Amino acid sequence: MEEQTKGKPIRCKAAVCWNPGEVLVIEEIEVAPPQGYEVRIKVICTSLCHSDITYRNRKDLPLPFPLIFGHEAVGVVESVGEGVDEVKEGDLVVPFFLPECGDCTDCKSPKSNLCTKVPFQIAGSMIRSGTTRFSALAGGRHHPSPIYQVLGVSSFSEYTVVDVANVVKIPIDLPPDMACLLSCGISTGVGGAWRAAMVEAGSTVVIFGLGTVGLAVAEGARIQGASKIIGVDLNPQKFELGQVYGLTDFINPKECGDKPVHEVVRAMTDGGADYCFECVGLASLMSDAFLSSRPGWGKTIILGVEMHGAPLSISALEILKGKTVMGSMFGGIKPKADIPILANKYLKKELQLEGFITHEVSFQDINKAFDLMLQGECLRCIIRMDA
Amino acid sequence: MEEQTKGKPIRCKAAVCWNPGEVLVIEEIEVAPPQGYEVRIKVICTSLCHSDITYRNRKDLPLPFPLIFGHEAVGVVESVGEGVDEVKEGDLVVPFFLPECGDCTDCKSPKSNLCTKVPFQIAGSMIRSGTTRFSALAGGRHHPSPIYQVLGVSSFSEYTVVDVANVVKIPIDLPPDMACLLSCGISTGVGGAWRAAMVEAGSTVVIFGLGTVGLAVAEGARIQGASKIIGVDLNPQKFELGQVYGLTDFINPKECGDKPVHEVVRAMTDGGADYCFECVGLASLMSDAFLSSRPGWGKTIILGVEMHGAPLSISALEILKGKTVMGSMFGGIKPKADIPILANKYLKKELQLEGFITHEVSFQDINKAFDLMLQGECLRCIIRMDA
Repeated sequence: MEEQTKGKPIRCKAAVCWNPGEVLVIEEIEVAPPQGYEVRIKVICTSLCHSDITYRNRKDLPLPFPLIFGHEAVGVVESVGEGVDEVKEGDLVVPFFLPECGDCTDCKSPKSNLCTKVPFQIAGSMIRSGTTRFSALAGGRHHPSPIYQVLGVSSFSEYTVVDVANVVKIPIDLPPDMACLLSCGISTGVGGAWRAAMVEAGSTVVIFGLGTVGLAVAEGARIQGASKIIGVDLNPQKFELGQVYGLTDFINPKECGDKPVHEVVRAMTDGGADYCFECVGLASLMSDAFLSSRPGWGKTIILGVEMHGAPLSISALEILKGKTVMGSMFGGIKPKADIPILANKYLKKELQLEGFITHEVSFQDINKAFDLMLQGECLRCIIRMDA
Repeated sequence: MEEQTKGKPIRCKAAVCWNPGEVLVIEEIEVAPPQGYEVRIKVICTSLCHSDITYRNRKDLPLPFPLIFGHEAVGVVESVGEGVDEVKEGDLVVPFFLPECGDCTDCKSPKSNLCTKVPFQIAGSMIRSGTTRFSALAGGRHHPSPIYQVLGVSSFSEYTVVDVANVVKIPIDLPPDMACLLSCGISTGVGGAWRAAMVEAGSTVVIFGLGTVGLAVAEGARIQGASKIIGVDLNPQKFELGQVYGLTDFINPKECGDKPVHEVVRAMTDGGADYCFECVGLASLMSDAFLSSRPGWGKTIILGVEMHGAPLSISALEILKGKTVMGSMFGGIKPKADIPILANKYLKKELQLEGFITHEVSFQDINKAFDLMLQGECLRCIIRMDA
């Protein structure tokens, strides 16, 4: 198959979002061959992350349409463009949204994961050429037209093309659905505790928001040896769920009465937690997290993307008490080095991934994944391309 | 002399502030002997820090009056209370405002300088006993009454009593006026670069506000080997002054036209500085500092006490670019260990202190020090008790 398609356009099925706010439409599209420094991937499975819903629903964002969403995935390399020697046909790979060229000042520094040579973009065309590899078919329901990419991955398609900076080879024995999880949310959460915060053994940790990222922070904190891991969520069922990942305590803000959450945290942690993570994307929770952090050395780590664009407001006097607030994309991980490390941790049973998959749908039913996620019970819904 | 006074009250001169906003009045007061864990000090010289002016002028602060200000000083131990074995009669000592008991979790941690056992307080009585050692004389202009202490030091008095947590012995060969400088402002600035930010060799540094603290940050960054140290100040004379302490570049916000300062900094530092220090205490400057910091790893260090109580507002999206904001009291130094280190650096000519003393007045003329500081040309004004 691969030999037959190499260098040629591939016709395949993709879930296209034609206009902001609309459900996805499965239809046949054309995927052009990879150009220089690009990799064409046959997607095995993909999963839905909240950002995809945000990008689909927020009509105010300046995104080009039509779009192919999806940025958590695993696949097999079908062919590579010129200049690609990092992966080859047949490799099992995880694409990811935060590029890593490996050459720039940032990629070479252990302190940054924000590549300056191949900059991160939410949506558009291939970053080096400025053109997209997806197009709608001539003569179909729509005129022939370019279809744009999202987060450099666009995995809601049987085939996709990504920059070599957005892909990493992983061990061939990793189950595809587990590999898929490492593509964004779980790596962000585990990385938040491991790489961004560098949680130390014996620390106290508070996690605001127990979605996939928040629970993965717990898993990361558990692996790092935290002694107390407090989850804060409005859904009390999250406590039982989170105990698998090391949650030791739970706060339901609805049950705190007149007491602000940060006062409850302070009482539970002898004055404040060592590490506080915001995993929702609400400025008010970021502020709660900051106030929950311990004077002297408390660190607040912002992982959530503020959903209303509101600024983070913190007391200029309170931060003088030796506190730190830091933000992190992708939990501070360097994807090319760290995703394989996480994959190996899973294979060695040091990292738990199974419980994060709560649902599974066929590619045809992809819109169901959106519904499941919006209902709030779903952590990760795996979408199998061949099902 | 010491033998004669030990265990007895001492009558001496002090500069008393009887009411908020009033000038200080030099008069005779009584200084009680030190109680347990206290040290009575004969002050040699003291200097004026901006906080003293703030505490004197801000009538809205809930401070007890009358007060004795002054928290940058050097002196000789006259006598010690029970339980004090860290210093003894005749030792040259520097008192400081941020207590360090040496025993609590915070004091034992290398990550904190906020003692939890002997908490920092702006004004009041001795922290362990709840009583003050200063009193106005009976029969004087005022009725006999307690006089309260400021920042645990109250050095605008020929004799003062401090908690043993607020004092450190320094080398006897250190000139008193230089020692005095290490008591607050200079240690805060140097410490900010050295201990709080841990500036690395070759880094780019921006300093917002070139008062004593800001210039001391430059000195600290110079010692740490920073390659570019940019000062931001409305007074262009500060550039010449700051070059002694390693300033390599200067930005006068009045000369930036329509360009915000952070854009000018970004252009000068290839996208943003590694370390940005706010040394004034204005939320707008804190925001400028944050925006001037480099994506990927930029750190903003807040050293200034926000003068209007305004919160620090930062973009929740901008911080996701791997940025950090941290606050620090006393530049993150552990005073008992670090003030002697700084003293020795001065003696070895590794730390420059001389240029910080721009004025000197006699104790009788102490109100002139306030005037000089308010005129804006003064960095540090030394007040000699015996002059």
